Amino acid sequence: MKVVIAGFGTVGQGVAEVIGMRRELFQKGFRQKVTIVGAFDSSSLVKNPRGLDPEVLVARKAGTGRVGKRPLDGGAEEFIEEYDFDTLIETTPTNIVDAEPGLTYIRTALNAGKNVVTSNKGPLALKFRELTSTAAKNKVQLRYEASVGGAMPVINLSRELLRGEQIYSLRGILNGTCNFILNRMKDEGLPFEQALREAQEMGIAERDPTYDIDGVDSACKLAILANAIFGRDVTYNDVMRTGIRSITEDAISLASEQHMVVRLIGEINDKRVEVSPRMVPVGHPLAIGGTLNIVQLITDLAGDITVAGRGAGRKETASAVLSDLLALMNEGRGKRR
Amino acid sequence: MKVVIAGFGTVGQGVAEVIGMRRELFQKGFRQKVTIVGAFDSSSLVKNPRGLDPEVLVARKAGTGRVGKRPLDGGAEEFIEEYDFDTLIETTPTNIVDAEPGLTYIRTALNAGKNVVTSNKGPLALKFRELTSTAAKNKVQLRYEASVGGAMPVINLSRELLRGEQIYSLRGILNGTCNFILNRMKDEGLPFEQALREAQEMGIAERDPTYDIDGVDSACKLAILANAIFGRDVTYNDVMRTGIRSITEDAISLASEQHMVVRLIGEINDKRVEVSPRMVPVGHPLAIGGTLNIVQLITDLAGDITVAGRGAGRKETASAVLSDLLALMNEGRGKRR
Repeated sequence: MKVVIAGFGTVGQGVAEVIGMRRELFQKGFRQKVTIVGAFDSSSLVKNPRGLDPEVLVARKAGTGRVGKRPLDGGAEEFIEEYDFDTLIETTPTNIVDAEPGLTYIRTALNAGKNVVTSNKGPLALKFRELTSTAAKNKVQLRYEASVGGAMPVINLSRELLRGEQIYSLRGILNGTCNFILNRMKDEGLPFEQALREAQEMGIAERDPTYDIDGVDSACKLAILANAIFGRDVTYNDVMRTGIRSITEDAISLASEQHMVVRLIGEINDKRVEVSPRMVPVGHPLAIGGTLNIVQLITDLAGDITVAGRGAGRKETASAVLSDLLALMNEGRGKRR
Repeated sequence: MKVVIAGFGTVGQGVAEVIGMRRELFQKGFRQKVTIVGAFDSSSLVKNPRGLDPEVLVARKAGTGRVGKRPLDGGAEEFIEEYDFDTLIETTPTNIVDAEPGLTYIRTALNAGKNVVTSNKGPLALKFRELTSTAAKNKVQLRYEASVGGAMPVINLSRELLRGEQIYSLRGILNGTCNFILNRMKDEGLPFEQALREAQEMGIAERDPTYDIDGVDSACKLAILANAIFGRDVTYNDVMRTGIRSITEDAISLASEQHMVVRLIGEINDKRVEVSPRMVPVGHPLAIGGTLNIVQLITDLAGDITVAGRGAGRKETASAVLSDLLALMNEGRGKRR
């Protein structure tokens, strides 16, 4: 399988490294090679039909800030369209306003008959139906396990292992930063602002924390799950959303007295697709601590199935991309027809 | 796919019902039919090459205590060997001494070129390597998601969704009854005997609770996981095992003071395959309450992945059997070649 990596930030670099690390698995488990034949970031491009060394790419990015030696010069679309490869691995950052540049990259690749594996929430949270029908029309696959909850395999679990179930509803914690803050507020009796500052100092929260604490990130993921698992046709903008800014220490200690914890819960059911702070009994799977992401699926036969994993991180997100690549290979979709 | 159900207790009946309920899924999702062409329990047999009605089977069992009208007369082996069908669904009760009668049923079916889907821990906890190599030799499949943790999809998750990971170790709660008892001891300050009695009154623990509280059930499941996920060659008898009988209220309240809970944990790592009571921090995924089963896998890329589900129950266990049947159909293994 010849792949091109679009976007060469944390996730793109992690993917390149993982492709290097798993050479033997591809060969032994699937009798295939995965060759990185191109990569580009916002300003540069590198390509070689015979393959690029992942370590060289990562080192050049670290040294020069660019993955390639030649300028991209706006040529990404043409490159995706005309260059010979099988699968675009799209790892550009999430943009929830217009989903660019990822949206154009994905659309172009699918229309050019290439599979896409993406970690980027924006295009899926805004244009899910368009992209999945473009993939179907072109008889290629669009896979996106990495876009929701990093290493937590919720999409492939729901769609593959639970394909015999009717999934009625879903509840989950889709943002590790909020969970960390809520936990610190409870354990140390900290006010919100202080717990947030601590999370920022530890590198868990961004300097501009809006995206996490106002539930934007969770709402993007919830929109993707609503489309992918429940066949809904919703976008990020349809998700009802309340963040955790206004949660007081008092609310948390009051919950504590009732053996409850406060969690930022995303929920999909017949009535709503909503992100909001909720009380959860101690000992309930969703009372999980730390920065994990967790999803509980309510089904007709299996009852409730819960899956948790690390919601972010270079290796972790790359591992989800890897699982999608392996699924493509397993279905004999590694090569273009 | 023509199936025969061996054993028609709770799980066998659940499987028959679920096969009835999912006719449309088989047809639409896989363009196949699943036909129950035979079923037997310890004393009776029923067969019809054109198919049996699941509802009639369940009703007859409820009414007469037998699934069939004619006596079995020790003819199960010959029946499995000679009758025309594709997959044996083996749901006889677990026997941890010699694994019979399930072991003979499974062995006979595999040697006769039939796939086997089983919910029975005994044969796998005692004869895993023999059975998997018999399956390989005969080019058929042996699937056993239902044998560990009911609806919790830990085996297929590990082997399919995480096939790109190196799984280093595993920790889990594999027996819901023990978890219920430990929780009641903590929440209500009950002594062990009283919490056990309560569990028995609620039908959560058996009248003879040895199998659960001495860790036998957990150890069987752990042996299966060690073989299936880690490629070990161990049996139930190799698992180090300590139950929860000797856990005192004091130990639990002492743990509580340190924000810990006591859980009966099964662990597989480089050094050990062991079931024993352990302390777990509150908020940790394994601090889960209720009667759920839960497993945490520690991997090289994804980090820790946790999956939880209902460890027992008619529908729940049948749902795991269903997932294995669908996997067979998906791989085009539904029909004998």
